[in-house]
Amino acid sequence: MSTDLAARAKAADAADPLAHLRARFSLPPDTVYLDGNSLGALPAAVPDRIADVVRRQWGTDLIRSWTDNGWWAAPERIGDRIAPLIGAAPGQVVVGDSTSVNVFRALVSAVRLHQRPQDNDRSEIVVDATTFPTDGYVAESAAKMTGRTLVPAHPRALTDALSHRTAAVLLNHVDFRTGELWDMAALTELIHGVGAYAIWDLSHSAGALPVDLDAGGVDLAVGCTYKYLNGGPGAPAYSYARAELLPRLEQPLPGWCSHRDPFGMEAGYRPADGVTRLRTGTPEMISLLTLDAALDVWDGVDMASVRAKSLALTTFFVECVRALVPADRIRVLTPDAPRRGSQVALACTDAEAVMTALIEARVIGDYRPPDVLRFGFAAPYVGFADALRAAEVIAEVLA
Amino acid sequence: MSTDLAARAKAADAADPLAHLRARFSLPPDTVYLDGNSLGALPAAVPDRIADVVRRQWGTDLIRSWTDNGWWAAPERIGDRIAPLIGAAPGQVVVGDSTSVNVFRALVSAVRLHQRPQDNDRSEIVVDATTFPTDGYVAESAAKMTGRTLVPAHPRALTDALSHRTAAVLLNHVDFRTGELWDMAALTELIHGVGAYAIWDLSHSAGALPVDLDAGGVDLAVGCTYKYLNGGPGAPAYSYARAELLPRLEQPLPGWCSHRDPFGMEAGYRPADGVTRLRTGTPEMISLLTLDAALDVWDGVDMASVRAKSLALTTFFVECVRALVPADRIRVLTPDAPRRGSQVALACTDAEAVMTALIEARVIGDYRPPDVLRFGFAAPYVGFADALRAAEVIAEVLA
Repeated sequence: MSTDLAARAKAADAADPLAHLRARFSLPPDTVYLDGNSLGALPAAVPDRIADVVRRQWGTDLIRSWTDNGWWAAPERIGDRIAPLIGAAPGQVVVGDSTSVNVFRALVSAVRLHQRPQDNDRSEIVVDATTFPTDGYVAESAAKMTGRTLVPAHPRALTDALSHRTAAVLLNHVDFRTGELWDMAALTELIHGVGAYAIWDLSHSAGALPVDLDAGGVDLAVGCTYKYLNGGPGAPAYSYARAELLPRLEQPLPGWCSHRDPFGMEAGYRPADGVTRLRTGTPEMISLLTLDAALDVWDGVDMASVRAKSLALTTFFVECVRALVPADRIRVLTPDAPRRGSQVALACTDAEAVMTALIEARVIGDYRPPDVLRFGFAAPYVGFADALRAAEVIAEVLA
Repeated sequence: MSTDLAARAKAADAADPLAHLRARFSLPPDTVYLDGNSLGALPAAVPDRIADVVRRQWGTDLIRSWTDNGWWAAPERIGDRIAPLIGAAPGQVVVGDSTSVNVFRALVSAVRLHQRPQDNDRSEIVVDATTFPTDGYVAESAAKMTGRTLVPAHPRALTDALSHRTAAVLLNHVDFRTGELWDMAALTELIHGVGAYAIWDLSHSAGALPVDLDAGGVDLAVGCTYKYLNGGPGAPAYSYARAELLPRLEQPLPGWCSHRDPFGMEAGYRPADGVTRLRTGTPEMISLLTLDAALDVWDGVDMASVRAKSLALTTFFVECVRALVPADRIRVLTPDAPRRGSQVALACTDAEAVMTALIEARVIGDYRPPDVLRFGFAAPYVGFADALRAAEVIAEVLA
């Protein structure tokens, strides 16, 4: 059976229209890297670009780089490079700070959009009960600091949690544990139906599949850049805000970089126009420009073809797992295509020990408690032979 | 007169016990760089270290670097490298996020320390009226979100602003505009005298002069690392908290990295022990490890000798300016030694145009509105001949 699968993997890799993208990455040999949903691989162009940022821009040009090398406007400029990957028109995305900080900023800003007297009873923030924990922790803090009650709700049962009391809803586009993909447009419509604002966390969808923020009517969004966007470890996150909301946003972290006249050094705060008002302090420029260089891998890449390959990869991987691993040893948690992002989650006993053994055999995924093996399939650099090899090693480890 | 000054500069440079430190930096030729109080110079060891972080740690070791290359604990480890520079025992400093975000975290945490019933009338946050603007903007937001009133006060008139209503006070150790150094221990004692918490911003003192947080009884502190600590553009800031306060701190940005069991992925938030509870999201690792490499320049350096050279440099520079520049063309804003940090601020008409001309002549300082020329003297890489050259060029430009 593995012979047949091997022939199919070989044919699929040979026919892959995105196969040339792998050369845009620097990957260790003899390794199947399926953890790009946690830390994306190194784009090959990054090291030389960063060396230039460090040696020339910092070392030689020094303070003048803020103007002459475009450092000051980099958060907005790089935001506009991410924008087409998430279905956003220019001027609505800005990069900086961690995802957690961006979640806090987005939630408090959304709650404050309810400013009419009749909005006083918007007393609840609804948060995805299946969320990556940081969103829940930060949402709890945002609720406390804005005098709201936090209401956890499963995305599948969102309607039950929504009411005229709902101020804002924070959802994940793709479940970090199971890989389930939620219907952004449909859920956003539900949220708008009760007059609340919809905030989406794109950490596990941006760079993995087409995202349509503008078309979906999304109000605010945040996302991570170190997963499928390959921005480097802890690369800065981003915020999106729908253009018509921007003039009304009052964010809770109004640092000098979000001021209308930052070098005026005014004592009083006046927010900048546009998405600049979602900045805060001085951006961590080396990490930010690492992300900038990393985004070059998307040049000329159509996200629809990334999605097509991703679904083919995950479907083939699940088929290989089902063919090679005894059915009683493993359970597929991820929904069938197309109701998934770009990862496959498998439940098994002793999952943590199993993942350690897989990594020793150079099949790199990760473990999430209590019993989940996660495998991310980054279409730009993962192939079908990789998927088969991963399934074979899983079968060996579980044998 | 300039001849005599030149002889004295030459002698002072020859006798400088820190002269060998300049070789630890990579500086452009024929440039007098006096903007290290805005962006510190590039430590020579940084480029190779960052190349290793990017190529090997990210590119080859990939996700395993979080454990195998010490990424996970880097914020605390690098905090402990900064600690001796600011008079802090280990375990009280953690690096991450911008100074603005750290100011927000510190202020809200300090206000929340007042938890006894009799603390309910702690209704005011006092903020340095001369502060770098971001601290004021963020303090206003922190006040609003904690239901407090913001009270701006000049450090010289702090007593007038303090009362039983004061919850917390945010001061700058060195004034970013004039370079005036405030007496941290004395002002902290005043603040404690009314039962309030003292928060210090060390952005213009750490790395420039000895700071004694523990000895001064400071409660919380924040600081920037891209000025005198040479951490690179926008390098992450840090937070300090007095050890005995740590178990009681409830910070407003409780991301997953501040959780007691971050990989447990628990739905409920439980803060970590120790200074880890002041972390938030995933740290921007490339910028963070750039700072780590940059801190090597302090190996074996005694901060008292840095201070001695800094004061000698700024004193000599002011003497040169007074000798070479007509008295009616310029006014020295910076107090006499030792009541200054490591910068000299000069007021003159057309200051912005004057600074442009200085930079064209390769004397790099910066301009701050409305009429201030700022010159930072980073003792590890600035010499006495540099100070004289700067004064000569100022005299030429103003002639």
